[in-house]
Amino acid sequence: MSKVLGVLGGMGPAATVAFLARVQALTPAQGDQDHIRVIADINPKVPDRNRQPDAAERTLGQMAMRLRDAGAQVLAMPCNTAHAQAAGIRKVGLPFIDMIAETTAAAIAGGARKIGVLATPGGEALYTRSLQATGARIVRLTGSDREAFMACIYAVKRGDVGEAPRAEMRRLAAALVAAGAEAVIAGCTEVPLLLEAGDVSAPLVDSAEVLAAACVKACA
Amino acid sequence: MSKVLGVLGGMGPAATVAFLARVQALTPAQGDQDHIRVIADINPKVPDRNRQPDAAERTLGQMAMRLRDAGAQVLAMPCNTAHAQAAGIRKVGLPFIDMIAETTAAAIAGGARKIGVLATPGGEALYTRSLQATGARIVRLTGSDREAFMACIYAVKRGDVGEAPRAEMRRLAAALVAAGAEAVIAGCTEVPLLLEAGDVSAPLVDSAEVLAAACVKACA
Repeated sequence: MSKVLGVLGGMGPAATVAFLARVQALTPAQGDQDHIRVIADINPKVPDRNRQPDAAERTLGQMAMRLRDAGAQVLAMPCNTAHAQAAGIRKVGLPFIDMIAETTAAAIAGGARKIGVLATPGGEALYTRSLQATGARIVRLTGSDREAFMACIYAVKRGDVGEAPRAEMRRLAAALVAAGAEAVIAGCTEVPLLLEAGDVSAPLVDSAEVLAAACVKACA
Repeated sequence: MSKVLGVLGGMGPAATVAFLARVQALTPAQGDQDHIRVIADINPKVPDRNRQPDAAERTLGQMAMRLRDAGAQVLAMPCNTAHAQAAGIRKVGLPFIDMIAETTAAAIAGGARKIGVLATPGGEALYTRSLQATGARIVRLTGSDREAFMACIYAVKRGDVGEAPRAEMRRLAAALVAAGAEAVIAGCTEVPLLLEAGDVSAPLVDSAEVLAAACVKACA
């Protein structure tokens, strides 16, 4: 029996739509009825996760509650950074597919032990803990590359997925590989809008793809 | 003050995701917070609109109610055919942006009076009434082209948006123009996944684009 997936989205909006398309692409379907029912709250007004974490946690909790009341049976949130506020979501009592845990497991499964992470500072902190718990080591961007990464993310949020931010994201992924990364986690859902597996010389573990696959497995 | 848009989707799923992307593309935004909040129920299990119209109307009414209870303030449904069952949606008392009415108005605004329509039989019936009420005339596909059109729609629903159904859809649009159409309505949300404005020698009025623009106008 297929389950209704509730998606806490909008962080950012384009990444959420790309995630929804990916869930569909990963669902074996010959027609409409074979697809999962998804109720998505694409809420770009969630308070800033870095500057107002408590307000963000409350808002995410309210969104989760409304998704549950609307019929969602399993919850997922295609935003790595916001997982720092996932406690508000877990309180509503539905299964919540943890993007950080799923992506960490996928990265480790490939055998890599030094894992590069392309993420916001908040997302990076989550992956640091999650990877260390498995005995793996995180490889981070350093110096001005950290600001360069955030500039790429804000470019996507402005609607710019052109060659300039793409080239920059390829350069940042290469910097992680040069620093010893045996695999690279696209640990921010804006990253795959700029970077494909073929762009990186090490295996790319795309958190959005991993989460979409886990959702299909849980709900199809 | 921006409004929350509720989307009754899933008919079909790919068309709904394309519609959500279009709403974002039409929203003037420099960052996440400038986008509209959208709550989308992507429900591919809505009963068949042709074979079980009463059950479909009840399901759409329940979806509209749940979207309202989840916070939606304006409703839209990116499926032309299902507008035959829109009474169930209107009952919940929120403004409902009528895709058939908006698209008819957009087609007429260009000055055309003989309007070709690419739609399912159900969608075609809705456009026939809507266009006739304005004094315009509908130009329909005839003979085996009617089955050929539905075969293209089911190809999209199977995930096939390749060159074969694209070529077929271009041929069908050309058949309408050859039959006298001064403009062509893409009156099924699967059509724009196969056909672009440049593919048709007459102006193409895309119902999904028209509805997305109306949603941005109502909610941004």
